[in-house]
Amino acid sequence: MSQQTAHAHRPASTPAIADDVRSVHEGGKLEVTAKAPVRDRHDLALVYTPGVAQVSAAIHAQPSLARSLTIKHNSVAVVSDGSAVLGLGDIGPAAAMPVMEGKALLLKQLAGVDGYPICLDERDPDRIVDIVAAIAPGFGGINLEDISAPRCFEVEGKLRKRLDIPVFHDDQHGTAIVVLAALRNATRLLGKTVGPALRVVVQGIGAAGIAVSELLLAAGVSDVVGVDRDGIVTARRATARDPIFRRLGKRTNPRHLAGTVDVALDGADVFVGVSAGNTLTEAQLQRMAPGAIVFAMANPVPEIDPEIARRHAGVVATGRSDQPNQINNVLCFPGLFRGLLDAGATRVTTTTKLAAAAAIAGLIPGDELAADHVIPSPFDERVVPAVARAVAETARREGAVATGGGPQDVATARR
Amino acid sequence: MSQQTAHAHRPASTPAIADDVRSVHEGGKLEVTAKAPVRDRHDLALVYTPGVAQVSAAIHAQPSLARSLTIKHNSVAVVSDGSAVLGLGDIGPAAAMPVMEGKALLLKQLAGVDGYPICLDERDPDRIVDIVAAIAPGFGGINLEDISAPRCFEVEGKLRKRLDIPVFHDDQHGTAIVVLAALRNATRLLGKTVGPALRVVVQGIGAAGIAVSELLLAAGVSDVVGVDRDGIVTARRATARDPIFRRLGKRTNPRHLAGTVDVALDGADVFVGVSAGNTLTEAQLQRMAPGAIVFAMANPVPEIDPEIARRHAGVVATGRSDQPNQINNVLCFPGLFRGLLDAGATRVTTTTKLAAAAAIAGLIPGDELAADHVIPSPFDERVVPAVARAVAETARREGAVATGGGPQDVATARR
Repeated sequence: MSQQTAHAHRPASTPAIADDVRSVHEGGKLEVTAKAPVRDRHDLALVYTPGVAQVSAAIHAQPSLARSLTIKHNSVAVVSDGSAVLGLGDIGPAAAMPVMEGKALLLKQLAGVDGYPICLDERDPDRIVDIVAAIAPGFGGINLEDISAPRCFEVEGKLRKRLDIPVFHDDQHGTAIVVLAALRNATRLLGKTVGPALRVVVQGIGAAGIAVSELLLAAGVSDVVGVDRDGIVTARRATARDPIFRRLGKRTNPRHLAGTVDVALDGADVFVGVSAGNTLTEAQLQRMAPGAIVFAMANPVPEIDPEIARRHAGVVATGRSDQPNQINNVLCFPGLFRGLLDAGATRVTTTTKLAAAAAIAGLIPGDELAADHVIPSPFDERVVPAVARAVAETARREGAVATGGGPQDVATARR
Repeated sequence: MSQQTAHAHRPASTPAIADDVRSVHEGGKLEVTAKAPVRDRHDLALVYTPGVAQVSAAIHAQPSLARSLTIKHNSVAVVSDGSAVLGLGDIGPAAAMPVMEGKALLLKQLAGVDGYPICLDERDPDRIVDIVAAIAPGFGGINLEDISAPRCFEVEGKLRKRLDIPVFHDDQHGTAIVVLAALRNATRLLGKTVGPALRVVVQGIGAAGIAVSELLLAAGVSDVVGVDRDGIVTARRATARDPIFRRLGKRTNPRHLAGTVDVALDGADVFVGVSAGNTLTEAQLQRMAPGAIVFAMANPVPEIDPEIARRHAGVVATGRSDQPNQINNVLCFPGLFRGLLDAGATRVTTTTKLAAAAAIAGLIPGDELAADHVIPSPFDERVVPAVARAVAETARREGAVATGGGPQDVATARR
């Protein structure tokens, strides 16, 4: 795959924007507001020169003070190159701005995190890494967003090694965490276990599909079979493609299946669809084990009509807000960054991701679990604090936190 | 001069921060706030998926819509590499954050501009240019700040060529504009003119000194003599140094003076000090023409004690807030960016800078002019609107504005 991809074809006419949509986006959805007033010379001398020089001198002498005396402790850069935006594809950085602003808005409204959108006019992975690393001093975390695969793996991997703040590609890990949370509850409801006996098929081997597969493996599932439009991902096929695909091919498919998705589906307990949508027929679904779990998350059109899926499956979830069991990244990223910032975390580990998934799943007690209620609503006010607490505790327990001058000393984070 | 400079020596102990200073900086001085609420699924569908896809698709089809449908129309990146911060010098990007936050705070409080601090862990001018160009899609303007000379000239020059939004290095041009404004009024008060007959000495040939010299030349002064610690800047001396210094050496010093600052001061009408401070003696001052104009702007210690200067000079100004006639960049940059954004400006021209200076000077009517009142207070509420109006009108008249979808359609800019 080329690393420099041309932007998607620009349509000849401008698509319509509904009035109610336009009105919330007009003029942008964010503003930068001042926490201190500047009414007179006295105020000016405190927030700016000469007073500010004392603060800068102190941080220069003791760099860890940057976490308590600047916005770093509560700030997350929401970074995209606009190469894989929603279902729109490669629309470029300017057109990606509304989405990144929306993400920042959700970070603030749901978790009190100050997100700021940074849309990059750059496609080379190494240069994206250099740019994000260069702007990192003012941020306490980096949320990568809507960067196309396989470039996103390289960008995230290199940034994780280079920076001392958490770097999280939401399209990968946010999706994986919420899928795992939903799967924990779906299996609990059906008397199954997220473990070696569970047979899982993941359809769509992009950023989300690969991250879902890897997090399921980390959670104890061993029988994950990946499927893309060319069929089952095998170790053999995988050697021909990029390193991430190759790693997946070696770590999944323990029964060495080969062939079409039909082969993978025979007797499978779980179908996780993160594909282009409309890919699964009723006949294919019937190949799965009785009472199967079907997460058909393609948007806006799921892999299979949820009405049809419910005829055969024990639990059905989608990415749609008009259906029960919406698997929505909004369940994870606000609380995750809240927890990372609260702990002054330096990285996001696999343990952190597993803890976030467990926290989301744990919000539904056993007696409330139902086929149409395996995952909480994004507007359940318990979600953000539960995820934040689990993430912060895990980061602290693992020692993945900054030393000295930590934000725990600062009582400014807003919920 | 090396382009990669080591950070200034880190002191062994942390300098003290006064309690009242600490309290306004604790936790940072800015937050990113949401302009639209997200209370339920309906709101979420408008600000985020699926509604946001309509907005992104429209911008992809018609890129100029980014100025009305995203934060771009009112956003300015306040960019520094932390190499020349206040009087502290090269303290690095983390320690520069409080200053850049302060600048963003002033942009918002005084002019309703959404400034966001971007502190760069990068020193190579070309890489800084690449980074700022890459993050530019989300911003309507770039304020460069506290980048050491001569790197600042290269960074600004290349960015100006590369970007279609205004790029403004405040340490250069903000200072130059306010100096010119004060000089217009000081000469008016003393019956002199900013023109060929005026003899001006500029002491300190860094970013500010060079920009002041060039703007004075653009304003019609022809007899500008630059002086640094090695004496008068001559065409001959200048050939040995960087291109900017060389250009200055050729364009200034029309009487071909050579030697020390004393030679330059003989009969001079105006002294503009942007040096390290404490450089001008009373005896040297007496070499100047009677009723001279002395702008001793070094901070915190001016080139000469203003009390002493007032014994001989007709008008004395400093950079200090506890003295009359404070030459403070706060008089310019908030209104300047307000005007640039209001017009959807694509660049800052010399005409724009001259217009901003005239607007600031024009706020003091002739009958209010006095030796201790040649420049308005930064808290004079007329300053920002006057500068903004002059800048926006100039940008529009020069055609230096973006076409289509301009922010004039957006009624969201706050004053």
